[in-house]
Amino acid sequence: MTELTEILQRQLALKLLKNGFHPEQVVTSAAALSCYGYDATRQQTEPMLALLPENEEQVKTILKIAGEKSLKIFPRGAGSGMSGGSIPTDDGIIISLTRMKQILEIDEENMIATVEPGVITGELQEEVSRCGLFYPPDPASLAFSTIGGNVTENAGGPRAVKYGVTGNFVMGLEAYLVNGEKIKCGNKCIKSVSGYDLTSLLVGSEGTLAIITKILLKLLPAPETVKTSLLAFASMSAAARAVNAMLKHQINPSTIEFLDHHSINAVRSALPFTLPEAADTVLLVEIDGPDALVKAQSEKLSRLFQDEALVLIEAKDENEREQLWLARRKLSPAIANIAPHKINEDIAVPLAAIPEVISRLEKLSQEIDLPIVCFGHAGDGNIHVNVMLDKNDPAQAIRGHKAIDEIFAITLELGGTLSGEHGIGNTKSAYFSKEWTPATIATMKAIKKAFDPGNRLNPGKIFPA
Amino acid sequence: MTELTEILQRQLALKLLKNGFHPEQVVTSAAALSCYGYDATRQQTEPMLALLPENEEQVKTILKIAGEKSLKIFPRGAGSGMSGGSIPTDDGIIISLTRMKQILEIDEENMIATVEPGVITGELQEEVSRCGLFYPPDPASLAFSTIGGNVTENAGGPRAVKYGVTGNFVMGLEAYLVNGEKIKCGNKCIKSVSGYDLTSLLVGSEGTLAIITKILLKLLPAPETVKTSLLAFASMSAAARAVNAMLKHQINPSTIEFLDHHSINAVRSALPFTLPEAADTVLLVEIDGPDALVKAQSEKLSRLFQDEALVLIEAKDENEREQLWLARRKLSPAIANIAPHKINEDIAVPLAAIPEVISRLEKLSQEIDLPIVCFGHAGDGNIHVNVMLDKNDPAQAIRGHKAIDEIFAITLELGGTLSGEHGIGNTKSAYFSKEWTPATIATMKAIKKAFDPGNRLNPGKIFPA
Repeated sequence: MTELTEILQRQLALKLLKNGFHPEQVVTSAAALSCYGYDATRQQTEPMLALLPENEEQVKTILKIAGEKSLKIFPRGAGSGMSGGSIPTDDGIIISLTRMKQILEIDEENMIATVEPGVITGELQEEVSRCGLFYPPDPASLAFSTIGGNVTENAGGPRAVKYGVTGNFVMGLEAYLVNGEKIKCGNKCIKSVSGYDLTSLLVGSEGTLAIITKILLKLLPAPETVKTSLLAFASMSAAARAVNAMLKHQINPSTIEFLDHHSINAVRSALPFTLPEAADTVLLVEIDGPDALVKAQSEKLSRLFQDEALVLIEAKDENEREQLWLARRKLSPAIANIAPHKINEDIAVPLAAIPEVISRLEKLSQEIDLPIVCFGHAGDGNIHVNVMLDKNDPAQAIRGHKAIDEIFAITLELGGTLSGEHGIGNTKSAYFSKEWTPATIATMKAIKKAFDPGNRLNPGKIFPA
Repeated sequence: MTELTEILQRQLALKLLKNGFHPEQVVTSAAALSCYGYDATRQQTEPMLALLPENEEQVKTILKIAGEKSLKIFPRGAGSGMSGGSIPTDDGIIISLTRMKQILEIDEENMIATVEPGVITGELQEEVSRCGLFYPPDPASLAFSTIGGNVTENAGGPRAVKYGVTGNFVMGLEAYLVNGEKIKCGNKCIKSVSGYDLTSLLVGSEGTLAIITKILLKLLPAPETVKTSLLAFASMSAAARAVNAMLKHQINPSTIEFLDHHSINAVRSALPFTLPEAADTVLLVEIDGPDALVKAQSEKLSRLFQDEALVLIEAKDENEREQLWLARRKLSPAIANIAPHKINEDIAVPLAAIPEVISRLEKLSQEIDLPIVCFGHAGDGNIHVNVMLDKNDPAQAIRGHKAIDEIFAITLELGGTLSGEHGIGNTKSAYFSKEWTPATIATMKAIKKAFDPGNRLNPGKIFPA
């Protein structure tokens, strides 16, 4: 921190304390600040000042004070983002929304929860389940990530196949513009076509348009039953055909996860059951809903794939279900045994392109002589691609980064997108103009400018520098 | 038309013919132009010039020529809109997209249709059903309205209860900005979080942001079975409780339409079955999906309401299904017998507020001494409110318009919205600022300005003058 920054930090801290902030809400020590400069991409910055507002009035106060000095603002939740969306790219004020964590209302009649952005996603799920209700979005980080972070990054998760992503559950928002004014969008109505859909615009905007302070979330009745099956196939294309066949045959799983052969090999020994050597691709299929439906669809699933699947295990109870999920859960730690480091991207492609993308990644892996491990959400085309390498080996590092260029090129060529659920942040912004035309990017930038003329709100994200 | 307008009309027509437009695509006669100055609100204007481009290059040419003279542009589809969205509010060029009506692709593997905006919604539904696929949105106008119109107004329909509205099926768009540049947004990926969600922003923007020239629509596998039931209840609150009970008990109908007692009385004599005098509210419930699910849920429906429902008729075949729908279909012509004119609004409220809104409209009806007929989509809170009157009676006309003010006030007070599926257009823009705060409207206007700095694209819509 420069001397000037330190003076600014002291001035601002003093001003906020005078404005009613508690010392705990004003973070100035370098050690404590380091907790507000990272995210799950392992970027680490040294923030200047982090503030922890406890209510929307305090958010407004921060924006007002930041405005007076034209300071940049970096909003963040739990810092579990996978694309750098919450990384402070410059000096400025970090607004951590983790203390605004009240579930304000669970409206059982309308099946809508109203929450503050700092609510932990998993805690909301537990809370609504006590009322027999269900909040489906299930990003892997749900035990610690916040709803606010989920909304601004439009987080996905395995259950997106049937239920959609976070954005599909956001009915309305309250948010503060950088100038300190509050906007409200959406409502508790299922149908609503009054003016522009600001709600959808703010969802996935990665904190670049406004600071969200209140969120209305659609809930569903909790499904009566969940049935989990594991199917193994001899090839990725056989597995992909199976996914297509399920959807065509009106089987509507909540989850269709896949593991490629690298992933299978990585977890095989840890599994409580035996997978044959010939198993090239595993599908983990979960069907939920009313009893009658789940029963009928599970039977159909068995019938459809009894010949083609090498293995078809159906969980009989919660314990067996947990065992089937083990393969998927042990994956991230297990692949660490393949190489010390990984570069992981969460590309998404149209469903039908999955076999082609996997086969081209296979070829790429041979070309660059690095393992590429793929797993993820076969039911929605969202693939987690992991290039395994030793970053300390300069040759490998170069090949690894070349691989990422290639992975995005293949993805876009097949009609895919840079990110299925992690967002662009600052880690993928260099590739953004490969996906979108100059006119499209100019339009997005014009919207950004309409919201934030001074580019003070989470600058350095989404758009190429 | 003034002399100046006529000169301009001739100049523009000449220029377009020189630029390759066929005379049929350039409408200049007053008689022919009258077909481009109306919509379903019965507004009728006298347009200056209507152009019927056949491809996106021609759309671009029109925008370029309009730009040179800073002319206003009014896009339209079939003119079936219910809020004046396509009404030319001023001199300018009408772009009718009805000739851009190609279904460009039905991608069966990815279950996505790519269409031009002029495709008739019903025709698309028929076409995809030949491949065993299903495009659920079903606005009442589907036999003649266009997909482009449905998208720009974000049209709903009875099946929105289960499937959502048009916007829930739009995966991507191509559109021309007023400056003639093309933007592309969305793609064929189920999950995609790369940059701002321009697709959702354009959906429901009522032609004020861009001219949509290509639309990617999500399709579903056609449901195996559809089962229709008619239930009659002794009161609106009993019917509303029934709707809530269905949803809570995991019955997930595709459609829950309701008819109030005025509506029932209007159609009673035309029905092929007898409805008891005590029937105050009728629900028309449709359950679709896999056979096993439909069977189980229909049985549950009968079990749940066998005591409380005065009548519970379940259609045994397609013929009986048609008969049950008769009540709903005959409604619009039938209520015309109550009074020569009607003012109809399509408010939406949170589900739980339906009984309250109906009871307050009842009271209002007594106060203004005019019948208020309500029917619509009980499953999603979208109510078609019809104030019945004789407009030629000045006292009734005044009371009728006062009623509309009251209807919106009640709706907004109960957390509702001005429009569930018709949009704001120019008929409801005067009420817009009652729903949204000044900061919210200013934000929407800033977006409008970012897209269309000269306010030349469909001006006079959505925003209060």
